[in-house]
Amino acid sequence: MKLIEIYARKRKDIAVIEQALEQTVRSDQALLQEASQHLLKAGGKRIRPVFVLLAGEFGHYDLNCLKHVAVPLELIHMASLVHDDVIDDAATRRGQPTVMSKWDNRVAMYTGDYIFAKALDVATKLEDARLHRILSKAMVEMAIGEMEQIRFFFETEQSNRDYLLRIRRKTALLIAISCQLGALAAGAPESVVRDLYRFGYNVGMAFQIRDDILDMTGTEKQLGKPPGSDIRQGNITLPVLYALREEHLRDELLREIERIRLADGQTDVGRFLSLVRGSSAIRRAEELASRYIGKSIAALEKLPDRTAKRELAEIARFIGERNY
Amino acid sequence: MKLIEIYARKRKDIAVIEQALEQTVRSDQALLQEASQHLLKAGGKRIRPVFVLLAGEFGHYDLNCLKHVAVPLELIHMASLVHDDVIDDAATRRGQPTVMSKWDNRVAMYTGDYIFAKALDVATKLEDARLHRILSKAMVEMAIGEMEQIRFFFETEQSNRDYLLRIRRKTALLIAISCQLGALAAGAPESVVRDLYRFGYNVGMAFQIRDDILDMTGTEKQLGKPPGSDIRQGNITLPVLYALREEHLRDELLREIERIRLADGQTDVGRFLSLVRGSSAIRRAEELASRYIGKSIAALEKLPDRTAKRELAEIARFIGERNY
Repeated sequence: MKLIEIYARKRKDIAVIEQALEQTVRSDQALLQEASQHLLKAGGKRIRPVFVLLAGEFGHYDLNCLKHVAVPLELIHMASLVHDDVIDDAATRRGQPTVMSKWDNRVAMYTGDYIFAKALDVATKLEDARLHRILSKAMVEMAIGEMEQIRFFFETEQSNRDYLLRIRRKTALLIAISCQLGALAAGAPESVVRDLYRFGYNVGMAFQIRDDILDMTGTEKQLGKPPGSDIRQGNITLPVLYALREEHLRDELLREIERIRLADGQTDVGRFLSLVRGSSAIRRAEELASRYIGKSIAALEKLPDRTAKRELAEIARFIGERNY
Repeated sequence: MKLIEIYARKRKDIAVIEQALEQTVRSDQALLQEASQHLLKAGGKRIRPVFVLLAGEFGHYDLNCLKHVAVPLELIHMASLVHDDVIDDAATRRGQPTVMSKWDNRVAMYTGDYIFAKALDVATKLEDARLHRILSKAMVEMAIGEMEQIRFFFETEQSNRDYLLRIRRKTALLIAISCQLGALAAGAPESVVRDLYRFGYNVGMAFQIRDDILDMTGTEKQLGKPPGSDIRQGNITLPVLYALREEHLRDELLREIERIRLADGQTDVGRFLSLVRGSSAIRRAEELASRYIGKSIAALEKLPDRTAKRELAEIARFIGERNY
């Protein structure tokens, strides 16, 4: 089974959600309309809505209800991306602040706020108060995760656990609750809901680790941005933590990181990247991602045999191997 | 009756809310804890919680329930202030971007996101789905209002209506729903809920108009920031719109505004302020604020005779006359 076949099978329902997303963020306010539509058009894999739909197949599948779960989740994801852009924008254009960059920042921040609010507004259509609680708690955790990321910028003394906790909040939680809420909204049995949460959590962890690996190993063409964006921003990811533990690399790596920090990320990071690439760090990070994928597939084990079950496993395997 | 007596009568309940605010934003994450506590300590009049409590007296007064209304409202207000700071920070420090200013911006944005999320998390304790809908719709309107403010920066051709719509979204709506939700949560009769909404809406409009007048007429000591902050930011407020309509002032005023715009707000605004102050604009804006106060007091007319009714009228009168 290929990923494209999964999307093909759910094509109609994904289209319904796509349309709902578009309608939800639609605004008479010209700037908001422009910014939101731009974000929507930029696409993305809509992995959270897909997980909601597939999880919904383990209960009473009601697209209209699942839509009100999928739309807020995707919008929360989008809003957090826009807010990350505010930060990135501030970082990369620093030293040359133009009216445009200021304008962009304002627009980006309030666009994010608007999309968050719209997400919540859609969520109020869900009767089940448990869903609201899960959503709002995840949003709190995500905000804490963003702050943790700031706190650990250029912090070379952090542990793997610090990193894992951060990506749990930043990425894994929202994917986990996509699966959980899809199943809950469909009235799936409790144990199914739990297993799907566990599936999503482990997939999400693997997803972010692979993302962080790709930022080291990908080309500008593959990534749509130059490799090494993470370290430029100060974000110390798992491969770096592994590489720092290799005695013969550690000192030079620390010097490179310090140099990048002092240059506020506005410097060549080629040497840094080749140090990490030349270590065993990439392989070890890949191994950890694979372990999470393994756990995610194991979490599916007890689920009833459905097409969706095989498809979830397929998506997990794809994420474990993705190279873009 | 004096304002201080109202706060004195509700002292215990306000203290409960204050404590709930403090507990709600409490975080193990050091930066979030520091930033949130700083915001809380900065104080504010807690006018939204006070309105929730007084409105609650028109139904079955249950502090525990009203708390879950008051805390989200005050937190939403606080979060929107922090996000405004992100923008202000960008504006006033422009040209001299320091690591600190960047850091502040990041911390401010994610602190705002965190407080928003915490507000929603508290709101999920409310069973009544109507309350959630009213809250989320108000948040959407507030975000649109922020964007509208950006769109109208330095726009001298806008109408009074443009201005009024903006302050409606930016300020009046949240105050209106503070009254509405307090009454709704207490199970007050529908007509009472409606009247209290109308009261809050008109008080909110007057409040923002007076705020915009004070930015023109106040001293740095009174305001805690230099007067003219609005025009420096590009925010064209009601007194300016009135002054622009005085033939003998219009041309010089337009030139001054254009000069300030070109200087990106980093210039002396003394001449601009004295032009507006010397016109009939301040008086006319004060008159409009007074009309809103009149309407707010009229909205109370049919409410049952309660201490809270007299107190709401007193607060409205105070807002109509406030000089700080």
